[in-house]
Amino acid sequence: MNYKIICRIISQILAIEAALMLPAVIIGVCDGTMQSVLAFLVTIAATLVFSGVLSIFSRRAKKGFYAREGLVCVGLGWTLMSIFGCLPFVISGEIPSFINALFETVSGFTTTGSSILENVELLSRCMLYWRSFSHWLGGMGVLVLVLAVIPKSKDSGGFSIHLLRAESPGPDVGKLMPKLKKTAIALYSIYVSLTVINFVALLIAKMPWFDALCTAFGTAGTGGFGIKADSLTGYSPAIQIVTTVFMLLFGINFNCYYWLMLRNVRSVLKNEELRLYLGSFVVATALITVNTLRMFSSVGEVIRHASFQVASIMTTTGFATTDFNLWPSFSKAVILALMIMGACAGSTGGGFKCIRVLLLFKSLKRSIKKMLHPQSVETVRVDGEPVREGIINGTVAYLIAYAFIAVASFLVISIDGFSVETNLSAMLSCLNNIGPGFDVVGPMGSFAGYGIISKLVLIFDMLAGRLEIFPVLVLFSKRTWKVT
Amino acid sequence: MNYKIICRIISQILAIEAALMLPAVIIGVCDGTMQSVLAFLVTIAATLVFSGVLSIFSRRAKKGFYAREGLVCVGLGWTLMSIFGCLPFVISGEIPSFINALFETVSGFTTTGSSILENVELLSRCMLYWRSFSHWLGGMGVLVLVLAVIPKSKDSGGFSIHLLRAESPGPDVGKLMPKLKKTAIALYSIYVSLTVINFVALLIAKMPWFDALCTAFGTAGTGGFGIKADSLTGYSPAIQIVTTVFMLLFGINFNCYYWLMLRNVRSVLKNEELRLYLGSFVVATALITVNTLRMFSSVGEVIRHASFQVASIMTTTGFATTDFNLWPSFSKAVILALMIMGACAGSTGGGFKCIRVLLLFKSLKRSIKKMLHPQSVETVRVDGEPVREGIINGTVAYLIAYAFIAVASFLVISIDGFSVETNLSAMLSCLNNIGPGFDVVGPMGSFAGYGIISKLVLIFDMLAGRLEIFPVLVLFSKRTWKVT
Repeated sequence: MNYKIICRIISQILAIEAALMLPAVIIGVCDGTMQSVLAFLVTIAATLVFSGVLSIFSRRAKKGFYAREGLVCVGLGWTLMSIFGCLPFVISGEIPSFINALFETVSGFTTTGSSILENVELLSRCMLYWRSFSHWLGGMGVLVLVLAVIPKSKDSGGFSIHLLRAESPGPDVGKLMPKLKKTAIALYSIYVSLTVINFVALLIAKMPWFDALCTAFGTAGTGGFGIKADSLTGYSPAIQIVTTVFMLLFGINFNCYYWLMLRNVRSVLKNEELRLYLGSFVVATALITVNTLRMFSSVGEVIRHASFQVASIMTTTGFATTDFNLWPSFSKAVILALMIMGACAGSTGGGFKCIRVLLLFKSLKRSIKKMLHPQSVETVRVDGEPVREGIINGTVAYLIAYAFIAVASFLVISIDGFSVETNLSAMLSCLNNIGPGFDVVGPMGSFAGYGIISKLVLIFDMLAGRLEIFPVLVLFSKRTWKVT
Repeated sequence: MNYKIICRIISQILAIEAALMLPAVIIGVCDGTMQSVLAFLVTIAATLVFSGVLSIFSRRAKKGFYAREGLVCVGLGWTLMSIFGCLPFVISGEIPSFINALFETVSGFTTTGSSILENVELLSRCMLYWRSFSHWLGGMGVLVLVLAVIPKSKDSGGFSIHLLRAESPGPDVGKLMPKLKKTAIALYSIYVSLTVINFVALLIAKMPWFDALCTAFGTAGTGGFGIKADSLTGYSPAIQIVTTVFMLLFGINFNCYYWLMLRNVRSVLKNEELRLYLGSFVVATALITVNTLRMFSSVGEVIRHASFQVASIMTTTGFATTDFNLWPSFSKAVILALMIMGACAGSTGGGFKCIRVLLLFKSLKRSIKKMLHPQSVETVRVDGEPVREGIINGTVAYLIAYAFIAVASFLVISIDGFSVETNLSAMLSCLNNIGPGFDVVGPMGSFAGYGIISKLVLIFDMLAGRLEIFPVLVLFSKRTWKVT
């Protein structure tokens, strides 16, 4: 294990994090909330000192950066980033308990949006900004940002490929661009542009600028932290519709936007994952519309709420315009199923990912064919092209790990005695980076009631969900830490 | 597809079924419940006529019996057996609705034990007998019985191996004995002997003979139909303890008993599945004992109830001595997790099977190793011996199919508007052939409230669970029915 190079990369992550806290300081100064400003300044200083120490330790790092180092970098980097990121909440006393602040920050970076706050409106604006901004940063990934900003010459040992693989969501069925630095810059350019358009669209829909900024961050990262206790319920229908559209856009594989930039419309149209994603959105919205017809005054209103909630859950954002906890069981079952599937790979959305569902379904079809005709040989194809067996095996390993973690987490958090529905949806919500669940942890509830052990498990689930399990899982494997 | 040979085997299944209804007729005559006797006689006649027609149609069958034919035979055979098996309930008017009678019969043959009866004590004794006996028949499998009783010369085309593979539970990691007829006879001999011992033990514990007979059938098949409305709650602690022990014994792979007969103790001791099975039993009992300590008057009583319920759910029997629906959430979560895992392969128990959990866990460990050291090559080993990749692929295909069916069934049965907890546990209970779930379908509840569509879905789930999905799934594949 090449510890020095790992330290260097983590040092860079923390330096970037410290820099990104500055806007919060400015907002705090403008608002005159000096206690929060002080908390941010202390945190920035502490983060920079730690980053500096790591940077000194990592001098004269040897070359040699492989899959193992990539996984550890991502797993450890995100953990440290969350620990430093939660300090402003603790120091300012706005979230006095460390475990709660950590939960909130991990929920932010992993774009989950689950909250332990019972009334979010009590936070100062600079904290609200930092909370929502963490979604935006976590959405595209901090290591992609590191790759985009560090000078190319520093990439000794070619670590880019392993980092990008370990951090980006979904199995990479598509092709990465040959130059990784270029990929990272392209991804962030698309991301920034879409966020700006979202922000402007919200302003046009007459949302106040600060609300629009935080909502755009939460939408772009498919995070879901709101700055109001009732999420988006209180805003106008126009704002809700704009948000529905942008949640859906951020749940699409960013490769599609890249293809569009290259005017390669055919690749977008033949994309099977995109079809499954949009098809599920339409079908789920239709089913819930029919099922909840009696709960609202007009069909238009039903469709608005149904499409918003479906988009919010599918893309794993987690905003709400209505308390879907009160919906009939069938609609809740649809929501639960969507919770598991999630958005497209290569988007900022979480969950199991549409492409994985597609791959597993196709691989199951192949197995049945093979059972009927044992001699037949067939390849699984996506978008008309054969999929390597390695990718199918990886997807299967993901399913197995996912199932074990889901069952184990569900068991542990049940200790706190909430209902089966609460625990199941809380676990699924965290593991898929969604935010709200049902019952106690419903859209109008919070995760405050869980004990410390449950919160730690849910923190693990959120990180495992965002980083696609393995970077977090390998941190617990003895083999990882062997020096050889 | 070789239709004629399939017809011949189904004709044999139905003839055996008709013969096995005779004891019910005798009980009915002794009790003087002539309406029920008439219902059985009509059913026997109808079954024999249908069997005869099939037998005529299947004359001069060509050779050629492969995996596909094996799967279809099992899937179709069990469906027809259930349809004929439910006729006595309908004709006698004791369960007037056909769909309810079919649900009850499928629940019987698949050894599920879920019931639509709100008060089972209203049934006549011959119906109670038939209901419990269906568990016993379904437990070891009717095709194994066909193989054991038909003269060897009739096995033209060597269909035994494909039938045995398609019907017996679990991936065959162990070795089958070279002569299949001998295997079938050995399995049934062990099965009959253990059932008789169970029956005698219950008699010694002072259970009335008819109750002991039905309970032994329900235990041996790991079915769980009781003949009292409160299952085993009303019987003495001795009877409950005897039943705990025998439920556990019937959940063990029958290969272990065969090894013991050959005095091959080492094979039994090194059996990893057995260790996982017994280990889970001990751990789950301990956890639930601690969690429910306050609900009972003495520690002995807690352990008796905890161990009974754990054994009942793990082995997918479904008897109850207490309403675990009232237990705290943590104990319920343990029960839910056990519901999925189930018993050992090659036993009469259902569920996902311990060996599959073991194989998936080992294959996940291998995937993680491979991620850390991409060049490494490793084989998964069980009981110290390498497992063929084909078996691991089959297990994975099973997991995928299981996950899709679970989500789809859960969605459909949610239409009826019961709670998420009810629907989730009802689906898991049927798919894993357990019997009771939580809430409305708890140990003291029933499945009567579900609508026709939900009942059909649950019937599908029970058959899919017992026959390990693929024999039922291929019936819906176009490819299966191609004549070539």
